[in-house]
Amino acid sequence: MNGAESMLETLANNGVEVCFSNPGTSEMHMVAAMGKSSRMRSILCLFEGVCSGAADGYGRMTGKPASTLLHLGPGLSNASANLHNARKAYSPVINLIGDHATYHKKYNTPLNSDVVGLAAPVSHWIETVADAATLPAAAARAVQAANVHPGQIATLIIPADCAWNDSTAPLEAQDMPESLRVPVANIKQTAALLRNGKTTIMLMGNTALTEKCLELADQLSQATGVRLYCDTFTARLPRGAGRCSIEKLGYFAEQATEQIKDAEQLVMVGTTAPVGFFAYPGKVSEFYPADSVLHTLAEVQHDAEQALTDLVAELDAGKFAPRRIKLQKPQLATGELNLKAVGQGFAALLPTDAIVVDESATSGAYTSALSATAEPHDWLSLTGGSIGYGLPLSIGTAVACPERKTICLQGDGGAMYTNQALWTMAREQLNVCVVIFANRKYQILQIELARVGAQSMSPRTLDMLDLSNPDLDFVKMAESMGVKATRATTADEFNQQFEAAMQTPGPRLIEVMLD
Amino acid sequence: MNGAESMLETLANNGVEVCFSNPGTSEMHMVAAMGKSSRMRSILCLFEGVCSGAADGYGRMTGKPASTLLHLGPGLSNASANLHNARKAYSPVINLIGDHATYHKKYNTPLNSDVVGLAAPVSHWIETVADAATLPAAAARAVQAANVHPGQIATLIIPADCAWNDSTAPLEAQDMPESLRVPVANIKQTAALLRNGKTTIMLMGNTALTEKCLELADQLSQATGVRLYCDTFTARLPRGAGRCSIEKLGYFAEQATEQIKDAEQLVMVGTTAPVGFFAYPGKVSEFYPADSVLHTLAEVQHDAEQALTDLVAELDAGKFAPRRIKLQKPQLATGELNLKAVGQGFAALLPTDAIVVDESATSGAYTSALSATAEPHDWLSLTGGSIGYGLPLSIGTAVACPERKTICLQGDGGAMYTNQALWTMAREQLNVCVVIFANRKYQILQIELARVGAQSMSPRTLDMLDLSNPDLDFVKMAESMGVKATRATTADEFNQQFEAAMQTPGPRLIEVMLD
Repeated sequence: MNGAESMLETLANNGVEVCFSNPGTSEMHMVAAMGKSSRMRSILCLFEGVCSGAADGYGRMTGKPASTLLHLGPGLSNASANLHNARKAYSPVINLIGDHATYHKKYNTPLNSDVVGLAAPVSHWIETVADAATLPAAAARAVQAANVHPGQIATLIIPADCAWNDSTAPLEAQDMPESLRVPVANIKQTAALLRNGKTTIMLMGNTALTEKCLELADQLSQATGVRLYCDTFTARLPRGAGRCSIEKLGYFAEQATEQIKDAEQLVMVGTTAPVGFFAYPGKVSEFYPADSVLHTLAEVQHDAEQALTDLVAELDAGKFAPRRIKLQKPQLATGELNLKAVGQGFAALLPTDAIVVDESATSGAYTSALSATAEPHDWLSLTGGSIGYGLPLSIGTAVACPERKTICLQGDGGAMYTNQALWTMAREQLNVCVVIFANRKYQILQIELARVGAQSMSPRTLDMLDLSNPDLDFVKMAESMGVKATRATTADEFNQQFEAAMQTPGPRLIEVMLD
Repeated sequence: MNGAESMLETLANNGVEVCFSNPGTSEMHMVAAMGKSSRMRSILCLFEGVCSGAADGYGRMTGKPASTLLHLGPGLSNASANLHNARKAYSPVINLIGDHATYHKKYNTPLNSDVVGLAAPVSHWIETVADAATLPAAAARAVQAANVHPGQIATLIIPADCAWNDSTAPLEAQDMPESLRVPVANIKQTAALLRNGKTTIMLMGNTALTEKCLELADQLSQATGVRLYCDTFTARLPRGAGRCSIEKLGYFAEQATEQIKDAEQLVMVGTTAPVGFFAYPGKVSEFYPADSVLHTLAEVQHDAEQALTDLVAELDAGKFAPRRIKLQKPQLATGELNLKAVGQGFAALLPTDAIVVDESATSGAYTSALSATAEPHDWLSLTGGSIGYGLPLSIGTAVACPERKTICLQGDGGAMYTNQALWTMAREQLNVCVVIFANRKYQILQIELARVGAQSMSPRTLDMLDLSNPDLDFVKMAESMGVKATRATTADEFNQQFEAAMQTPGPRLIEVMLD
């Protein structure tokens, strides 16, 4: 058994079953090993950023790592932006990166580069394999590293000869790391804060945003009056009928500071104190009142559910029944197609247990607001701010949960960064409906241009943020990669097309034409 | 004048006139500055890898740097693979990377990352600006760094407040660094080697591959019998009628070792000793005979033309008239469309002074071989091995040389990494003809799979390298981004479409259907 084969069995023995692949020559033995084994599903992507985004989506939905297969430093570079997003989502991911054979690395060949250097900013854990014999154990360590709660990016660099030389036996299933428990002292301290009568905000993020955690938080809110908010961008948020409600903190400083302007205390659960996404001239970076008290109940590596359970017990909040959202769907719109009409159709027709991948940017206000009381669903956001995550992430969620419908709400500008993802959706016949908001501009930037106080709003400047010359045709683009696509120019057309997509498995793209 | 404006004027004063842009919020003041000034042409790209590839192409054709405008760490990540290629081509490039405002960087915001860490593996020079007052001088240093002979990647990281705060006056034109001159002792030593009667190979690369250098090398060959080869992958190689001939070293070990198996001495000019692109089990990494003598006349930072001029004088080789290639065009093929037919049509119809950007991989043998005696042209290759450079590079060459026709010979697999480049070609109406070789597989990898001795060639394995499920439709894809496109299924169709493209300015794509 060569290194690649033993590594693959080790990964499979430790629960890694999917590999999002864009291989090259130095990964050929890993490709061959996957071809021989039935224990790792290899999903071919035409760009490495699709691999890493898909692994992020898979990790968010399953809580366990997928692997990526990447070709030396440049393959990692192409994956890097979506690894950044995955890192900010605390998704577990294992990167398998081929490199030159150990004895070949010293030459100044075209593909030689500092792979470790490229990996460091986007990885929590990096190991370069020394020889074939130690590759299986290194692979097992990579799985453990990826599983550090709530999830880490583990990067394993595999020189080609370590894959092709004879190796040792695969490792069996290893113990995986556990989350940290919040100390009792902190539970009591937090309880005291919630009891002291001051205006208190609880800000929740990451692993504190499970259905159960939201129920516990709602009980705390009923018991103490604490107001609940979650981060603006969340890896995964359960929403809709039957779930407990939580309000998102606004994106812009003027929104968020207004929401929590009266806070005397902030309690963070699974996240950090709220600050601006960007700085703006003359605006604050910190969203909380300057004299408010900041307290962290659980950091991201803690078991948020246990902490909230302990806190509920401490405050005797268990007697309150969680207040659950009642199903309430908007009417379908008719006539003109605008963002509100799309939001109405989306919220009304959203199927139970849908997975919504949101990269709609400025087009998303109504889809988000109107679906708060829709059928229960999960909402996945852009955690790292790196545009081009929506289509790739949707591959991963659909691979993880094939029986659920993934709906990708996607701005046209963002779609272009990683449009190659459409081909993989077609190839794997993934259960994804992509809704493209075609406003034909980087609208968020036209807003930001004004907000940062940049003085030129001349046609020449705005042209630099305009996508209408020439117009993009997403129907043709989807069809060019094998995805069935239609264009909606009226509310009725959108409703009809979206409903059909919800009722039919497999990939589908709807281009929403906005003025 | 704010920092962004003064920076822009400084760059323009130092010959930087083009910016390949994919901005975000932190770059808004730079966008505004470009909107107000007419001295920097901003070319919008829909993905940062298009920006960096375009800057590489611009640098290769003009010898001077273009700038890129990138959005924080993730924008740099997306640009990184083509920066790797640019670095290996020794192209001058200036990256302008916005980052969070100096006082905002300390927060753990979504887009925060280690920008310097991401930049290091792909940059020769990095500087993070401290304040608006020092930004213009830093920009001037960036231009100097990019112009270190023959070209460097200079990365300037610009916190947003350094762009928006009041700054100092722009800097005027600065002195630029000069190339190194090869010492006389080395000229004499090299001359002695060429005179000693041993079988000698001269391997040329990078700046040693100008028209003039090839003439000088041809004179040396006539005078001493030295055999001339160039690197397999060259940043720019003048070819065709009127130029002097040079043979490329083969890509595979078995080709290259055969070509130079009798070498007793190797003289390197602007490059290093030839080694394998990859290692293969049981095959050598070093292509030259183990007992051959290696000697470097000029390293890449030296003035290769001066060194060869000095060597010609030392050896009295100036009396030999350079042997120039005579124009000889193949017949046009008719009937079945195959790689040879494409090569014939391409070579026969190639216009004078065309720029050929080659990412054809396994499909390129005939186009390259048959055009050796075609109209004079420049041939640009993939210097860093990172796939997805062809379409972006063609943007840069067409911006640099609008009056010359750029022809991009592009494999279908490689085209998918950065297909967004097509939109910029349409937007700027660039003079580019893209020829897509649609063989619907990663054919090079199917070859490499066998060569590395991977044992599984099962359908399951081969499927991982197959692009035919579903078929890509490059005509639709090009049209979706505003580029006129046609499909060639016979030799006659290809000839007709290619000839029309050569005679019509502006962008055009031809999908060559291969079996």
